[in-house]
Amino acid sequence: MLRVGILTSGGDCQALNAAMRGVVKAIYTKRDDVEIYGFQDGYKGLMYGDFKVLESRDFSGILTLGGTILGTSRQPFKLMRKPDENGLDKVEEMKQTYHKLHLNCLVVLGGNGSHKTANLLREEGLNVVTLPKTIDNDLWGTDMTFGFQSAVDIATDTIDRIHTTATSHGRVFIIEVMGHKVGHVTLHAGIAGGADIILLPEIPYDIDVVVRAINRRNKSGKKFTIIAVAEGAISKEVAELPKKAQKEARAKYPSVAYEIADKISERTDQEVRITVPGHTQRGGSPCPYDRVLATRLGAAAAEMILEEDYGKMAAVRNNEIIRVPLEEVAGKLKYLDPDSSIIREAELTGISFGI
Amino acid sequence: MLRVGILTSGGDCQALNAAMRGVVKAIYTKRDDVEIYGFQDGYKGLMYGDFKVLESRDFSGILTLGGTILGTSRQPFKLMRKPDENGLDKVEEMKQTYHKLHLNCLVVLGGNGSHKTANLLREEGLNVVTLPKTIDNDLWGTDMTFGFQSAVDIATDTIDRIHTTATSHGRVFIIEVMGHKVGHVTLHAGIAGGADIILLPEIPYDIDVVVRAINRRNKSGKKFTIIAVAEGAISKEVAELPKKAQKEARAKYPSVAYEIADKISERTDQEVRITVPGHTQRGGSPCPYDRVLATRLGAAAAEMILEEDYGKMAAVRNNEIIRVPLEEVAGKLKYLDPDSSIIREAELTGISFGI
Amino acid sequence: MLRVGILTSGGDCQALNAAMRGVVKAIYTKRDDVEIYGFQDGYKGLMYGDFKVLESRDFSGILTLGGTILGTSRQPFKLMRKPDENGLDKVEEMKQTYHKLHLNCLVVLGGNGSHKTANLLREEGLNVVTLPKTIDNDLWGTDMTFGFQSAVDIATDTIDRIHTTATSHGRVFIIEVMGHKVGHVTLHAGIAGGADIILLPEIPYDIDVVVRAINRRNKSGKKFTIIAVAEGAISKEVAELPKKAQKEARAKYPSVAYEIADKISERTDQEVRITVPGHTQRGGSPCPYDRVLATRLGAAAAEMILEEDYGKMAAVRNNEIIRVPLEEVAGKLKYLDPDSSIIREAELTGISFGI
Amino acid sequence: MLRVGILTSGGDCQALNAAMRGVVKAIYTKRDDVEIYGFQDGYKGLMYGDFKVLESRDFSGILTLGGTILGTSRQPFKLMRKPDENGLDKVEEMKQTYHKLHLNCLVVLGGNGSHKTANLLREEGLNVVTLPKTIDNDLWGTDMTFGFQSAVDIATDTIDRIHTTATSHGRVFIIEVMGHKVGHVTLHAGIAGGADIILLPEIPYDIDVVVRAINRRNKSGKKFTIIAVAEGAISKEVAELPKKAQKEARAKYPSVAYEIADKISERTDQEVRITVPGHTQRGGSPCPYDRVLATRLGAAAAEMILEEDYGKMAAVRNNEIIRVPLEEVAGKLKYLDPDSSIIREAELTGISFGI
Repeated sequence: MLRVGILTSGGDCQALNAAMRGVVKAIYTKRDDVEIYGFQDGYKGLMYGDFKVLESRDFSGILTLGGTILGTSRQPFKLMRKPDENGLDKVEEMKQTYHKLHLNCLVVLGGNGSHKTANLLREEGLNVVTLPKTIDNDLWGTDMTFGFQSAVDIATDTIDRIHTTATSHGRVFIIEVMGHKVGHVTLHAGIAGGADIILLPEIPYDIDVVVRAINRRNKSGKKFTIIAVAEGAISKEVAELPKKAQKEARAKYPSVAYEIADKISERTDQEVRITVPGHTQRGGSPCPYDRVLATRLGAAAAEMILEEDYGKMAAVRNNEIIRVPLEEVAGKLKYLDPDSSIIREAELTGISFGI
Repeated sequence: MLRVGILTSGGDCQALNAAMRGVVKAIYTKRDDVEIYGFQDGYKGLMYGDFKVLESRDFSGILTLGGTILGTSRQPFKLMRKPDENGLDKVEEMKQTYHKLHLNCLVVLGGNGSHKTANLLREEGLNVVTLPKTIDNDLWGTDMTFGFQSAVDIATDTIDRIHTTATSHGRVFIIEVMGHKVGHVTLHAGIAGGADIILLPEIPYDIDVVVRAINRRNKSGKKFTIIAVAEGAISKEVAELPKKAQKEARAKYPSVAYEIADKISERTDQEVRITVPGHTQRGGSPCPYDRVLATRLGAAAAEMILEEDYGKMAAVRNNEIIRVPLEEVAGKLKYLDPDSSIIREAELTGISFGI
Repeated sequence: MLRVGILTSGGDCQALNAAMRGVVKAIYTKRDDVEIYGFQDGYKGLMYGDFKVLESRDFSGILTLGGTILGTSRQPFKLMRKPDENGLDKVEEMKQTYHKLHLNCLVVLGGNGSHKTANLLREEGLNVVTLPKTIDNDLWGTDMTFGFQSAVDIATDTIDRIHTTATSHGRVFIIEVMGHKVGHVTLHAGIAGGADIILLPEIPYDIDVVVRAINRRNKSGKKFTIIAVAEGAISKEVAELPKKAQKEARAKYPSVAYEIADKISERTDQEVRITVPGHTQRGGSPCPYDRVLATRLGAAAAEMILEEDYGKMAAVRNNEIIRVPLEEVAGKLKYLDPDSSIIREAELTGISFGI
Repeated sequence: MLRVGILTSGGDCQALNAAMRGVVKAIYTKRDDVEIYGFQDGYKGLMYGDFKVLESRDFSGILTLGGTILGTSRQPFKLMRKPDENGLDKVEEMKQTYHKLHLNCLVVLGGNGSHKTANLLREEGLNVVTLPKTIDNDLWGTDMTFGFQSAVDIATDTIDRIHTTATSHGRVFIIEVMGHKVGHVTLHAGIAGGADIILLPEIPYDIDVVVRAINRRNKSGKKFTIIAVAEGAISKEVAELPKKAQKEARAKYPSVAYEIADKISERTDQEVRITVPGHTQRGGSPCPYDRVLATRLGAAAAEMILEEDYGKMAAVRNNEIIRVPLEEVAGKLKYLDPDSSIIREAELTGISFGI
């Protein structure tokens, strides 16, 4: 009997269900003697033994379904080794559930924080296989995470819609795009949406350069400007402060879009408007690209399980599915390289990065 | 020679271009000796004589185009009779432009404020024909305005996406929908998106009833609640205050969604999240429903011009296009009727209106 | 105890699930002592006693789901009074199931054929309540059926996409739109998609007029022409033939689009291409308009059940929900009126109807 | 003065305008002394000297526009060296136009056939830079062509919609997907749409295996089957015939979907339906993925022009933009590798390839 635990952890994103369907369908293609244990709400379910025994048919028809049928929760890694509310060691509790159910392995679909925990469980001797899930695409070891392209599609759609309003009214529009500490989603949605200015965490911006870019557009007869700003974007001045002072500087505004709007309003007479698509960027049916990626990664994870090749993440590199050891993935962020060719190409087409 | 001025006024919305295309195509079907004067940025263009002479082909291929090729601006009616920055009477300036160009008539695509001004110009002797444009659907005299269904589609799409996130995380999600002082868009998007609670300006809500509805869902095992709230929604308590105090009470929060979120957080231990789709609700390509409506209304406006039947708005009532005198339209808002059957039907399906 | 049977009959369409959800949610809002019997695959399930006992939660989360959770099948009315494969009277068998389960009433979601059968069951003494379901919008007694607007949206999307190809290549494109014997979907999608020529069953076309319209476009410098043709469209010549000869004339071509393509190719040197979106027009998530309509009609049907007001269809007229006796609905088609104002308005904007 | 000719050739696809916008914007970022010559309708425009002098602003606002603002036409390579209708050598005429306009280079956006011609012009001494355009993704030398992902999105949307109908009625549905002689679009759309069977040109199918897969689904209680078939798919028997006999065998059916439908109908009692999305797969606004890819490739082509590095195609390999000599690209097709891991992964999840 093959006993597989599975959980989804961290912020939800598109194609979580598609990926789980891939894992389970592929296992059942090769084995009949399978039991799937679906843990509720991420690591919490593993901690508290909150699970359902699922069958093949529970994963049928969910390819296009947004969200996760298992539920998810954010479990900050920092708190992971702290005792839980019953005073018990969290990791110890998770191990106990794992062993009590005689699991052969645990499949974790998660992003950065979740991979730290997954690696910790691996170090504790559990057989762990992971899948790279996040709209941010900031996971080390894989070219691409599922959720990313769907989020880019939604953020682009937002910029497209704002474009018509901006054109009609002649305003500066700031669209704040998700992405946590990295700029991947913003960069792609910004290029795809025809943003005039793109501000990213990896390229601290100079507000005076931003204002000059706006003024230059106005002088050339274009009455509106579209700015795509990553939620983690940062100004040059603030980037040079110590971490704590950075945090304080940011806390003055609801979010970075408001900070930039304020500064532009101080320096120009343009009307400025803000749009924050927010959680919609995580929601709804995955785009076809993500469905293919998630299905492939899911099948690849199943292969790892069938081969008992544990302690690794199914990843994609140069369009091929590979396996990356968890210790290489855990604790590292995949930032945008400011010197990468996509930045240069974007600049060539006239996009300003505020520098 | 038939000389037709045309302008789009107020907040932009979908199908403005489709409607103008309808007007112009229909005029050219019947007449060859036509000159079209497109005024820039709404009434401003008429005031300052800022226009372009347009041809039939300028209106070709714009059926699906969002925004307005003429630009638009908000001109509060209250300021309309104040002198402009040159100390001149605004209405007088518009009349001068109209007469200087020897216009036979002026076509105005606008919402509530714009119809007040249109009626004022009519009173001053100008030949005015109008089209009902607004996502809010709050214009008196017509069952439907173009832009409304497109806005409903976008707001519903937002709720759909949030649904998957809400399900995955088990949260209360508040989606704030546009609509100015009326609840039409929110009601329709709320029903279409399967919202659990819908809060509308026309039905002041009781926060305790809202909280009870959330708790009832939790008790029945549903871990999330979706609240669609109109930007003009108001609590019972505040609704009973005098106007000025109402304004002050509202000013404490960035917008109504934040107020409700605060109150729910005070009264429950649920995580609450806010999504504000904002200006995206006015943007992008019009939905097919709006394209048909705008084309029909545009053609009907052309018929009015060809028949020299002025001083009226092309409107739709019981699925037929009719003509409504401007004096009946100007200055009235079309509110939702709290006793209408759609409200009763929505309540029957389990939706709470917070009362 | 309230025992309600429910079935979906005829070709599937969008919002069937939304409507059933409306019925069931509204019944449970008012009553606790309810049993819902879902018959499989339309009247077949009622005939053969093939059903599932469903609960409130089976209808949760299906608002946006395409298709029907009960399955459906086409049961031509003509065959309804013929014995079934076991030599038993079909209607008699349905009555037996109904009585055996002690049903209080039967809810039927169906189009034209299904309403004939529903009326027949009413005549046999069953308590029947119906909902108007069809993309064709050809059901007598209601201004609108659910499925229609979703089908218009999909057909319009097809025309939109073809537009870019047509423009790039300078071709004649024929898009064949569903609608059975009526032209509602084609007319609305044709106007919304900016079709140059629209051919409808209710307005038999003259191929020479069609060709002249194409040539006129070419002469004016427009290298492409978009023709939206209803699957039931018919030429003047064929329309004048007796029914049998009509059928033979039609049988020469896979479908009407091929006939028209052939005739255009004979008469011009234009490249002609055909696109048939086909069953996609029935599929996928219902548009927000249909979700609202289906939810309202569902709730209204529940009200009829709770009031024991049977033998009627929940319908919409002038934006209000009404109840129409089944004997008025059964056996009648709601054709497009060639003299209606929407046709005149479309012609005004330059659309040719081939006459 | 930098004189750049530009043309789009072959079947139209999404992101042609986005790519041209990228080229032109990037050239103008670096140079002021530029003249852009846009040739009409592909190589024809170059042959007959049919062009427009375009400016930077002609390429503004076209990022999201489907089709090509220059028009396109198919020019079979085989006919390229035949004299034109005036008895003149086609290539010679193109050279003359090029030299008469003192062009510094020619930018060609095209697929396979167009690259053969581009290479021929290079051999004749013209400075040619190309961009890989085709929904088929069958161009040698690049991992990805623009248009591909947009076509996958549309074909997937078709399968999604058919899924709801198939589920409701319990039928076999065959969706015929574009792709010319290769299966890339079908494979990706098939996986993304959750097809049960995928039939590709590169993997000749055995109809008996297809039928067994259908029967297996029925036995397991699933009443419907979705088959995604590439327009170039071929059965084992026919694949073994000589080319001429293959052609004859195919000519018996309107297209491959009809052949497969016939064979399934002969072998099972299942209702079979066909959907052919056809040209819609080339149409409409490019998806964000394609917009980013086309913009990057466009900027990269501009870099090549500015560096006078001619005779190459801008391509993407392992997520980086590279330059591939035209002689390596011309005349080769990039087929799907039947042994690639994506095929294995798809099979693991239960998809049958009919072998």
